[in-house]
Amino acid sequence: MSTPVFLVPETSWIAVSPDSDFSLNNLPYGVARFPKGEFSVVVAIGDYALNLSRLYKRGYFPELNTEKNPFRKSSLNAFIRLGRPSWTYVRRRLLELLDLKNTELQKRKDLSKILVPQSLLTFLLPVEISNYTDFYSSLEHASNVGKMFRPDGDAMLPNWKHIPVGYHGRASSVVVSGYPIHRPKGQTLPEGSEVPVFGPSRLLDFELEMAFIVGKSNALGESVPVDKAEDHLFGMTIFNDWSARDIQKWEYVPLGPFLAKNFASSMSPWVVTMDALQPFRTEAPVQDVEVLPYLREKNRGTYDIKLQVDIQAAELPAVTVCRSNFKYLYWTMAQQLAHHTVGGCNMQVGDVCASGTISGPSPDSYGSMLELSWKGSKPLMLAEGVERRFLQDGDVVEMRAYCEKEGIRVGFGAVRTEILPSK
Amino acid sequence: MSTPVFLVPETSWIAVSPDSDFSLNNLPYGVARFPKGEFSVVVAIGDYALNLSRLYKRGYFPELNTEKNPFRKSSLNAFIRLGRPSWTYVRRRLLELLDLKNTELQKRKDLSKILVPQSLLTFLLPVEISNYTDFYSSLEHASNVGKMFRPDGDAMLPNWKHIPVGYHGRASSVVVSGYPIHRPKGQTLPEGSEVPVFGPSRLLDFELEMAFIVGKSNALGESVPVDKAEDHLFGMTIFNDWSARDIQKWEYVPLGPFLAKNFASSMSPWVVTMDALQPFRTEAPVQDVEVLPYLREKNRGTYDIKLQVDIQAAELPAVTVCRSNFKYLYWTMAQQLAHHTVGGCNMQVGDVCASGTISGPSPDSYGSMLELSWKGSKPLMLAEGVERRFLQDGDVVEMRAYCEKEGIRVGFGAVRTEILPSK
Repeated sequence: MSTPVFLVPETSWIAVSPDSDFSLNNLPYGVARFPKGEFSVVVAIGDYALNLSRLYKRGYFPELNTEKNPFRKSSLNAFIRLGRPSWTYVRRRLLELLDLKNTELQKRKDLSKILVPQSLLTFLLPVEISNYTDFYSSLEHASNVGKMFRPDGDAMLPNWKHIPVGYHGRASSVVVSGYPIHRPKGQTLPEGSEVPVFGPSRLLDFELEMAFIVGKSNALGESVPVDKAEDHLFGMTIFNDWSARDIQKWEYVPLGPFLAKNFASSMSPWVVTMDALQPFRTEAPVQDVEVLPYLREKNRGTYDIKLQVDIQAAELPAVTVCRSNFKYLYWTMAQQLAHHTVGGCNMQVGDVCASGTISGPSPDSYGSMLELSWKGSKPLMLAEGVERRFLQDGDVVEMRAYCEKEGIRVGFGAVRTEILPSK
Repeated sequence: MSTPVFLVPETSWIAVSPDSDFSLNNLPYGVARFPKGEFSVVVAIGDYALNLSRLYKRGYFPELNTEKNPFRKSSLNAFIRLGRPSWTYVRRRLLELLDLKNTELQKRKDLSKILVPQSLLTFLLPVEISNYTDFYSSLEHASNVGKMFRPDGDAMLPNWKHIPVGYHGRASSVVVSGYPIHRPKGQTLPEGSEVPVFGPSRLLDFELEMAFIVGKSNALGESVPVDKAEDHLFGMTIFNDWSARDIQKWEYVPLGPFLAKNFASSMSPWVVTMDALQPFRTEAPVQDVEVLPYLREKNRGTYDIKLQVDIQAAELPAVTVCRSNFKYLYWTMAQQLAHHTVGGCNMQVGDVCASGTISGPSPDSYGSMLELSWKGSKPLMLAEGVERRFLQDGDVVEMRAYCEKEGIRVGFGAVRTEILPSK
């Protein structure tokens, strides 16, 4: 683990509103297309984005150990590949440059070419994703699903408290916030029928998740010990693992979800670094079944990240349908990564591992419509006469995530997606 | 579908043994590292490989529509991306250049720099794989597994004859023939216990599969109609989907195989093009349950590809343990691709879709140790006193595949892999 970077005084020459996700303590990374068509890695500060490619070109990172500009790219991968010392160096350097007393940058005449309002930019998927894995790490979510689908059996499957259960997802269909999603078509089995029908999914759902981005690879055949796992993480994003429940129900036995998930997953444009998250580290839930040694953590911990899901139906104001927290997850990211690699699976820089739906203990903290409406039996009221069991065409789903401590906010921005009708 | 290229007379100035996989009718693509360290796309002919990068550089492909040398690469992806007209052009041009009467190439003084014995080369994974999917398309395999694991229920699950069942696999751990595999470690549940143990898998298995390489992408939200699906295929390889049965059994409910498969999959270095396979097109099995319209094929067909698995235990001769055929598969590649994309999933050039274990009707055609030894109850004899229920350290598994017609052979070479002990 790198040295934690503790909360710094919020004294920048760039005014940042106290309710902005992008404080000086945050400095999350994204990738943007600029008005003239160029791509650059950017860092958010308040309502602005810093063009790191131009900063690099103008010599602001003299100690960055690279021959080529790692920021003049359409993904973060090249920068991430430089490794943790470079991440730390860039973070420290940006904290310097943005400090009120530092004039290196703030007095530049061409500042407007380096510091650009985010509203002028188009954000891309921040990483080129080679492999995407989805875990299933919320006890409350797994237990809710178990109660609904196996009402007469044990809610929890026998392996769940021994294994951070996960499966491979589809990397190609991960898209960035703002990219609208068509309702998928597929096979479903009507109630009481033995023959499936084909058509648009009727039970389209979101799943409130967070994802970590792998920052350090391991070779095929090597595993990452649980106590070194956090050193392999670059940062985190919000992640919406879209799910078509009716397609899933018919297809998923015995090899798991396929078309129910692979039509799209949505990711926030900003990656909040593990450095920025350190002040918000907190205790993870106690595990009441002893895990195998390779999953036992010396310094078990997670992050206190507040989560929220809003649904906006056409011409109505947005309604918050869920408030949850990343810290509820039973399995930590370190355990997930240790498990993923314990058989020798090689992780690559830019790989994405999503948490699984993050449900909390109370019904208003459930992270999917499936649970919030309890399989459609308890519709949510969005307004007088407007209810939802699952998502409808035209609905906009927005997920937000942020940490807060001592009046300082480190946020992830949002994943905001409109549901379009089937093509 | 492109115009089939029919069997051509085997009249090349390069002598090709009649039992070689790499006849003039074949011309499969691979990627190799040359003795001086350079990479090039190569085409196999007999015991030789043609360096296409050098051919390109010397002007042998004047009509190839590209500004950069698509063959001076460490994968086939750039060439595949040029599209079918370019694949057809290069194939026709190579048939010309290799023809006995053509002197353009055979009279060159520097021929030995262009035409190199395969034995001097190191072969790489032929494609850079963005996404890997594994299907489960053999009726015999699914039925055998069903009989073993659900002895009191229906052997076939209700969805199997409606859906070409598939799931997402791990792309990063696909390796080329010759790359040795360490026995994976993981969690397994001992018979009669409720608590798992950790250690090397005791039930390591191969799965005899073939894979297709996607040659043409489709955009997110678009689907590929079943009757256009073959036009999206570039070619095929042999594929060994290594499986740890004991890890799989404990982990796979409810989200499918994960560590049981993601420690490695092995692929042949040669990609046989769909053009070369056309003469071996044959009827696919009749489907006895009517499928939904999006899976109905106007010209249903598959390929007659003979398959064989040998196991060589240390210091013993290799023993053929399985003879099967690609044509046994119930679901065709066209149906697999149509299903994969029907919900809008975007396929990318270089994506790999494996068939699932290819078992035939007779016990000696079963494509895995699980089936051949019927869950370990009928050990295979490799020699006097040497039996196998599953694979042991030091075993070498070799899979071969070839088509044969009118005395002409179009083969895939082999996937040959040694099992090393756990690390």
